[in-house]
Amino acid sequence: MKESTICPRLAKAMELLGKRWTTLILYQLLEGPQRFNEIESALPVSGRLLSERLKELEKEGVVERKVYTEVPVRVEYFLTDKGKALEGAIREVEKWSQCWIK
Amino acid sequence: MKESTICPRLAKAMELLGKRWTTLILYQLLEGPQRFNEIESALPVSGRLLSERLKELEKEGVVERKVYTEVPVRVEYFLTDKGKALEGAIREVEKWSQCWIK
Repeated sequence: MKESTICPRLAKAMELLGKRWTTLILYQLLEGPQRFNEIESALPVSGRLLSERLKELEKEGVVERKVYTEVPVRVEYFLTDKGKALEGAIREVEKWSQCWIK
Repeated sequence: MKESTICPRLAKAMELLGKRWTTLILYQLLEGPQRFNEIESALPVSGRLLSERLKELEKEGVVERKVYTEVPVRVEYFLTDKGKALEGAIREVEKWSQCWIK
């Protein structure tokens, strides 16, 4: 790979956020903790892919999964501090899309 | 495709910006108009893929290509107003990456 002058942190962030559905999942979670089915019904994404993306986001420490030991068991996903810190960026893209995308 | 509650404009914006290298190319062009070779040497991207991404960004009205009829011909790429309007979002991701990505 050739040398580049781009900061590796920025490149890594873009790689994470650039994956299909990732930012829309985070956008959805800005509303607060949600069950898998709630996220799934808000986005035109398959359950398989949503599950994969959520696992990646958990691994990166952006999303956390909490299991409530009720009957039936309740599982919710929510943004960590690292995830919440993305709100500014996501809101900026939202504003841009409202102004510039037809 | 199932119905979703996500704004189609936001989804379209995320699809455009989520493509590999797209946001890093825009980040690079925030510095001002640049020749193809300058962008290529700043990013670890192949010439073929860079050319493809620039064409997509031109088509979306985010980037413009200007040909200067000098000898040899000089071609520069620069952000349109629509492209410059993404600066806020890109700077937010940059800040986030500096704080949260190791």
